[in-house]
Amino acid sequence: MATFKPSHEGYVPGQLTLPQKYYVSEEIWNRENEKIFNKYWICVGHVSRIPGAGDYYLFDVLDEKLIIVRTKKGEVKALFNVCRHRGTLVCDSIPEDQQKPVDEETGHTNSFQCPYHAWTYDLEGNLISATKFMKGVPGFKLQDHPMGSLPVHVWQGFIFVNFGKNPEPFEKQYKGLIGRFDKWQMGRARSFKRITYSIETNWKYVFQNFNECYHCPTQHPLLNSRIDYTGSLNDLTEGPVLGGYFDILGDSMTTSGKFSAIPLADLGDDLNRAYYYTVFGAGLLLNIHGDYVMFHLVVPVAPGKTIVISEWLFNPEAWSLPGFNPEDAVEFWDITNLQDWHLTRIAQQGVRSRDYKPGWYSPRESLLESFDRFYLEELK
Amino acid sequence: MATFKPSHEGYVPGQLTLPQKYYVSEEIWNRENEKIFNKYWICVGHVSRIPGAGDYYLFDVLDEKLIIVRTKKGEVKALFNVCRHRGTLVCDSIPEDQQKPVDEETGHTNSFQCPYHAWTYDLEGNLISATKFMKGVPGFKLQDHPMGSLPVHVWQGFIFVNFGKNPEPFEKQYKGLIGRFDKWQMGRARSFKRITYSIETNWKYVFQNFNECYHCPTQHPLLNSRIDYTGSLNDLTEGPVLGGYFDILGDSMTTSGKFSAIPLADLGDDLNRAYYYTVFGAGLLLNIHGDYVMFHLVVPVAPGKTIVISEWLFNPEAWSLPGFNPEDAVEFWDITNLQDWHLTRIAQQGVRSRDYKPGWYSPRESLLESFDRFYLEELK
Amino acid sequence: MATFKPSHEGYVPGQLTLPQKYYVSEEIWNRENEKIFNKYWICVGHVSRIPGAGDYYLFDVLDEKLIIVRTKKGEVKALFNVCRHRGTLVCDSIPEDQQKPVDEETGHTNSFQCPYHAWTYDLEGNLISATKFMKGVPGFKLQDHPMGSLPVHVWQGFIFVNFGKNPEPFEKQYKGLIGRFDKWQMGRARSFKRITYSIETNWKYVFQNFNECYHCPTQHPLLNSRIDYTGSLNDLTEGPVLGGYFDILGDSMTTSGKFSAIPLADLGDDLNRAYYYTVFGAGLLLNIHGDYVMFHLVVPVAPGKTIVISEWLFNPEAWSLPGFNPEDAVEFWDITNLQDWHLTRIAQQGVRSRDYKPGWYSPRESLLESFDRFYLEELK
Repeated sequence: MATFKPSHEGYVPGQLTLPQKYYVSEEIWNRENEKIFNKYWICVGHVSRIPGAGDYYLFDVLDEKLIIVRTKKGEVKALFNVCRHRGTLVCDSIPEDQQKPVDEETGHTNSFQCPYHAWTYDLEGNLISATKFMKGVPGFKLQDHPMGSLPVHVWQGFIFVNFGKNPEPFEKQYKGLIGRFDKWQMGRARSFKRITYSIETNWKYVFQNFNECYHCPTQHPLLNSRIDYTGSLNDLTEGPVLGGYFDILGDSMTTSGKFSAIPLADLGDDLNRAYYYTVFGAGLLLNIHGDYVMFHLVVPVAPGKTIVISEWLFNPEAWSLPGFNPEDAVEFWDITNLQDWHLTRIAQQGVRSRDYKPGWYSPRESLLESFDRFYLEELK
Repeated sequence: MATFKPSHEGYVPGQLTLPQKYYVSEEIWNRENEKIFNKYWICVGHVSRIPGAGDYYLFDVLDEKLIIVRTKKGEVKALFNVCRHRGTLVCDSIPEDQQKPVDEETGHTNSFQCPYHAWTYDLEGNLISATKFMKGVPGFKLQDHPMGSLPVHVWQGFIFVNFGKNPEPFEKQYKGLIGRFDKWQMGRARSFKRITYSIETNWKYVFQNFNECYHCPTQHPLLNSRIDYTGSLNDLTEGPVLGGYFDILGDSMTTSGKFSAIPLADLGDDLNRAYYYTVFGAGLLLNIHGDYVMFHLVVPVAPGKTIVISEWLFNPEAWSLPGFNPEDAVEFWDITNLQDWHLTRIAQQGVRSRDYKPGWYSPRESLLESFDRFYLEELK
Repeated sequence: MATFKPSHEGYVPGQLTLPQKYYVSEEIWNRENEKIFNKYWICVGHVSRIPGAGDYYLFDVLDEKLIIVRTKKGEVKALFNVCRHRGTLVCDSIPEDQQKPVDEETGHTNSFQCPYHAWTYDLEGNLISATKFMKGVPGFKLQDHPMGSLPVHVWQGFIFVNFGKNPEPFEKQYKGLIGRFDKWQMGRARSFKRITYSIETNWKYVFQNFNECYHCPTQHPLLNSRIDYTGSLNDLTEGPVLGGYFDILGDSMTTSGKFSAIPLADLGDDLNRAYYYTVFGAGLLLNIHGDYVMFHLVVPVAPGKTIVISEWLFNPEAWSLPGFNPEDAVEFWDITNLQDWHLTRIAQQGVRSRDYKPGWYSPRESLLESFDRFYLEELK
């Protein structure tokens, strides 16, 4: 059972913010690539986008283009979007006649055919046809030319991939997650909306901004009206997974303050709590409420550029019930997100100055201290 | 006399596509600059743009800005667009009152005057006036300050320049061209249209794409309706000039399938053939038909960026004859070009992946194998 | 008393323009940063923007963001726009309710509050509040965390800052300025208009273009109608400050040719003269006329990119008098500026060519020779 304590417990007076180089230097960026991005399991979305065999979507991360697909066996595969013939993108976009009405960014297909010369792969990425001209070519065998793929792990419906040579087991890397959120049954939740934001900031500012509510009274009048920003309680305060919860003032974190949907599951006391967790390395930030989950995928693009993809999940039964008002939850966070991204942008602009020097964290930023300590240890 | 053979003859089973670095690395790009771009004669257009003395146009290549001009002696000169006074562009654009009605991108002038301080050069690039203030300056002589120029060679109306220190003779570098196309009398053909395309791809993908019709059935429904894509016959299959021809189904390679103009010359059997040739180093891709020539100038800008300028030439007598329908030819290739540029873009996107590895060419891509072999040899 | 001589006196026949690298190379740019930009006093504007205590504006220079503010003591401060807490920009823009009606780019405030966590600084940059959570944190003292600042020198109303470690005294660096322009009382002049131009050129081309009128007859028909371009007389012809004057044909340098305002002061013979001076290192170009001053701030951004901010100052009493027609002066220079920036752009485009080589200055460009000599000496 998780033990929660006030967020200022664990605060280390005098621990300073990270030096400038961690936000701007190419050398640090290269080390992050080696020690973090190519070592940790990275979240690339939620299974609710691809419920059926042949459902797929495209995902860009670490300068790579991936196809995330549900195979005929019902497994999730992550294929590199590269034809084995001449290297062309096999899917440059989802063809109109393959798009699923529920979500224009999800496709459905029985196979992947490269548009260049029609080399064709099954949903597992095996080459099943290379046109008649390759038949009889001495030494050429279809089975020698499957698409590349990455190992996949699914946790509570969230899909993770790993770019490392010898990936650590998911359960070892993210011990704090295991069993921690079973109650919410996020694996069966269904996606309502996805918004992609492009931010001129370092990825760590997005994590750090998420890990404190010290800025809530001045910057988030709406959010701040639903919580007592000094009342957060944390349970995971060291390691790659950090976070805790607020008691919600009112029903839920929505613009109206009312529930936007039926509960995700039978939640007891947790119905009126707003849980927040960051998953280091995975780029996953979780906002778990009684009636919905809003998660961010934080995709580092360059030292000063980050893509954030935010997605809203609800109880799949909510769609057919009266009172389902998901836009109430979407609007709440879209407003809050835009306020946050602005803060991360002006943090990035300031840190580039020759005048920047590491400053004192406040007691309300103890999770940022934990994040920095863990980050520096991993970067070694 | 040329000997033609089916395009799969000469195919080497197991020769693989080029490794990734040849499409993305700055180091390779620098070697290409030294070993290819600054060694080979480069095509910069066709004489039909500058029929009369004083006609000129501007051309950008290898980060240089050139003025291509017809002198009073009737010769073609390629001048560097750099004033000998303070280095300013002598022509930053073609002044409105110098533009020729036939083609707004061609100018006409008796001399080039730098806009900064009115230093003035004749059509040969000799400094003929430096304003009154330079008169009497000890040691200053007009004849010491001509504009820089490049050696020029004109072949069948196509203008080539050479950036090398000791250029090889044109005839030695492009032996395969000499005498090969005299019959079409391209030197007297007249330009109807020019289109400039900007493509996020490596220049070699444009060459490779041009050298095979393996992708025609899936990608070029219009083009494919005018040829049997398996029926190509090649004669130049090794060295810097590669290509052959298709028999055309119907009259010509036009949207309607009919001739767009009278023949370029007396062509006999070649009236209904579509010849295609690539000229390595020159950036010249030729599509020669009975009733018109469409050529591409392939201008490398960066490892991942290429400019292609496509131009359509017709028999100069066609303009005054009934049935002249040049847009029928322009549209046919503009449609086809856009399909091709898309393929070269997604090839470039795919090759950047860590998952890319060289793949097997098919028997229909033997000219690409030849191109790669020649390219690698030249790059040494 | 200044001694003036014709502008061709001091001309050195055969001194050549600068080699290419000085306009394009990153290495030279880095040396300029060390030897010039971070050594010389840089002009960042004129005091007329911030007449009262608490008035402030934002200024970007050398990749730094500054706040220029008038303190309660009436002094001008230049603060780095970086919060001491987590490095965020304290002012990312001037809030609407702080904008002064006279000029939307000037703000007014009693203190600077960081938008992130409300840490608050007084007009001197002292931290005066860090929210309740920092109270009682062991070792944390407000006085240890002031905003960073730069030394400021005000000369004739122009505000200069210095990024160097041990700045030379202003009077020593710009000896030629001291006492030279007291008569015009520029320190009490008032700003009417400010225009920002972005130019793809090297900063030195802006200086060099300003220092000669050899290009006036061909490029500036309007300007040239107000002066005899061969009649310039220079007094400061060596060192960091260079320039002289023209006699004006007509009243003033305005589109109409008439005075746009009452004189700046009691000027005697200087009422009808157009003085022009460049201040090396400061990025300051001065055009001083009887009825107004137009100055440029030349802000180097990259070897091939420069920002120029032009501003027009008038006698503060002119506003309330009949016949005040400041747009007549603004239009005159805006027309002229755009012509000049175009010339500096095509100079930059030409100098990048492999064909560029240093050329001969004319006798009318003696100040450019002086500029180059001084520049090369400083760069050593």
